[in-house]
Amino acid sequence: MSLEDKIRKVEPYVAGEQPKVPGLIKLNTNECPYPPSGKVKEALRLLEEESEKLRLYPDMNAQELVDAIAAHYGVDPERVFAGVGSDDVLSMCFLTFFTGGEEILFPDVTYSFYEVWAGLYRIPYRLVPLCSDFTIDPEDYIPADKGGRAPGTIGGIIFPNPNAPTGIELGQEDIERIVSANPDCVVIVDEAYVDFGARSALSLTEKYDNLLVVQTFSKSRAMAGSRIGFAIGSPRLIGYLKDVKFSFNSYTLNLQAIRAGRAAVEDDEYFREITGKVVKTREWFAKELKDLGFEMTQSRTNFLFAKPLFMDTNELFLRLRENKVLVRHWDRPRIGDYLRITIGTDDDMREVINIIRRIKGED
Amino acid sequence: MSLEDKIRKVEPYVAGEQPKVPGLIKLNTNECPYPPSGKVKEALRLLEEESEKLRLYPDMNAQELVDAIAAHYGVDPERVFAGVGSDDVLSMCFLTFFTGGEEILFPDVTYSFYEVWAGLYRIPYRLVPLCSDFTIDPEDYIPADKGGRAPGTIGGIIFPNPNAPTGIELGQEDIERIVSANPDCVVIVDEAYVDFGARSALSLTEKYDNLLVVQTFSKSRAMAGSRIGFAIGSPRLIGYLKDVKFSFNSYTLNLQAIRAGRAAVEDDEYFREITGKVVKTREWFAKELKDLGFEMTQSRTNFLFAKPLFMDTNELFLRLRENKVLVRHWDRPRIGDYLRITIGTDDDMREVINIIRRIKGED
Repeated sequence: MSLEDKIRKVEPYVAGEQPKVPGLIKLNTNECPYPPSGKVKEALRLLEEESEKLRLYPDMNAQELVDAIAAHYGVDPERVFAGVGSDDVLSMCFLTFFTGGEEILFPDVTYSFYEVWAGLYRIPYRLVPLCSDFTIDPEDYIPADKGGRAPGTIGGIIFPNPNAPTGIELGQEDIERIVSANPDCVVIVDEAYVDFGARSALSLTEKYDNLLVVQTFSKSRAMAGSRIGFAIGSPRLIGYLKDVKFSFNSYTLNLQAIRAGRAAVEDDEYFREITGKVVKTREWFAKELKDLGFEMTQSRTNFLFAKPLFMDTNELFLRLRENKVLVRHWDRPRIGDYLRITIGTDDDMREVINIIRRIKGED
Repeated sequence: MSLEDKIRKVEPYVAGEQPKVPGLIKLNTNECPYPPSGKVKEALRLLEEESEKLRLYPDMNAQELVDAIAAHYGVDPERVFAGVGSDDVLSMCFLTFFTGGEEILFPDVTYSFYEVWAGLYRIPYRLVPLCSDFTIDPEDYIPADKGGRAPGTIGGIIFPNPNAPTGIELGQEDIERIVSANPDCVVIVDEAYVDFGARSALSLTEKYDNLLVVQTFSKSRAMAGSRIGFAIGSPRLIGYLKDVKFSFNSYTLNLQAIRAGRAAVEDDEYFREITGKVVKTREWFAKELKDLGFEMTQSRTNFLFAKPLFMDTNELFLRLRENKVLVRHWDRPRIGDYLRITIGTDDDMREVINIIRRIKGED
């Protein structure tokens, strides 16, 4: 067998572009348009003073950060697991909870990494089509013997709430119905975008010990650059997650992330301020887009999923790009007619509206 | 199938203890006794000023850090891969390069995570016993048809150089013999401890494109808290590594690590100063230990692997602990008679000598 035969070959990931063009309005990766809390800056200053501590391994448990998250959400620290962004946490969840060999379920239109992790860890999966209006029908995730429409046994369930890139929220009752009807598998609710007006399933984790909620600091806490994510669930699930993680890479969250993350989560006032601003801008911008001739889902996130009715979507994508506005477009079945537009500042979005008007020839 | 049946159960990892006892001399996790470069402090200060940048995703390639490493070692940036500590890099290497289904080889006494990663990714492996003096015999890694003693085909090879916890260096000629005799598999030399007086196989990566060298910032650059590791090899191998890594978790090195790491690698003078100090302390301390009645391997690392001839090893370990000196001891075949003692400052090591004298009743 040759060397090449021993190497894993994968489809390289294509991330949202990160070009360095001056004056670019970057609305393609769902980052927060506002800076992190001033307390993060303060934490970095304190870390500078204590930089000699970097010589030591960081705390494996990131306890300082875990305790701050636990206090913020009013849960026991035993119920919190922290990782290097929610991608790291989710990947660890796939590895830990979906190993029974039974098919796991997730939507056909959703976060693209679910398929990647399932492939990586050789987990069989079945894509569950969204309804024609892009909503999730909870009955599709409920076994037939519980009155639902899911065929066969279920190895696990994961979906984002709100879903991405549709932005649509699934109601608490529907989530509870899915979780309660599936006591024999872990249900993961990926709440990357929950802080922009949707309701978290966090309180359900007290009632159901097969439920895990995963969140990130990358969007609502304006800290994509620090790579922090976390899961909250029963101490049993969190314990298994820690065992798996520590067994093969114990130290991953660095001291800088632990300190900065703690500072961010402790500044609730600022968190409410920036998420509130994003929501307000989103609502205003959605109305403007509608007036301009877009069809949209009801987004509870920091982006809009919008379909132009006045011109071809890819053409609009390219025209926006020429005008230094970067949004996301996937040339894929079902979603090819839509653009995913991150909510920036009011100024950013006013400029986008003006540019679209010019493209339409209205100006 | 119940929920429990779907969960991966692992042997939880037992790391070197990190107790918070005042006055403790902590010589159990091979951290550097000196602080990181002053330039790291400066980088953190600059980052404080630019903390608003944390709202954006970090550069997937960590290009700023990769370029600094490439410049320092005089190689093309295409030949460098950076990750979250060398554990992350090594784990990614197992996942990428050892997927042929053929047995990979590594020493029976070595870094304990090799077995863990092989298990995690279901890679068959064979432990190759070290010689009785704890050295690696290169012939054990060379196929019979090339004149060596390795039975069957080889799926891949990994060993630390210097090896851990023995501290013993394998010579360049021996490494080259292993690499050149195995063109059909990847050979990984894990150089976590190479900067304390051993010779790196780096230059061989220009000649052999099946060789990968992995290093870390955790020991010789005094930055265990920042979690930075890297691999250097042919652009082909590095390309495959990037494809696999980006395919399932694109952003892992945070902005703080990228900046701090770059600053550290650019301060070559300080790097030479602290590694030089550790080597000097090690040589002096080894002589003292010998005089006290220890047998030792020839260490080229920042630790000594030492066997007390005057009392039971575990008893000495516990007595040192009572005296607030923490070292590492494994109750395992072959190495149970040895202690692994990290090299601290001269003051630390003088104190250790005094304590051992007291334990022996010489004082």
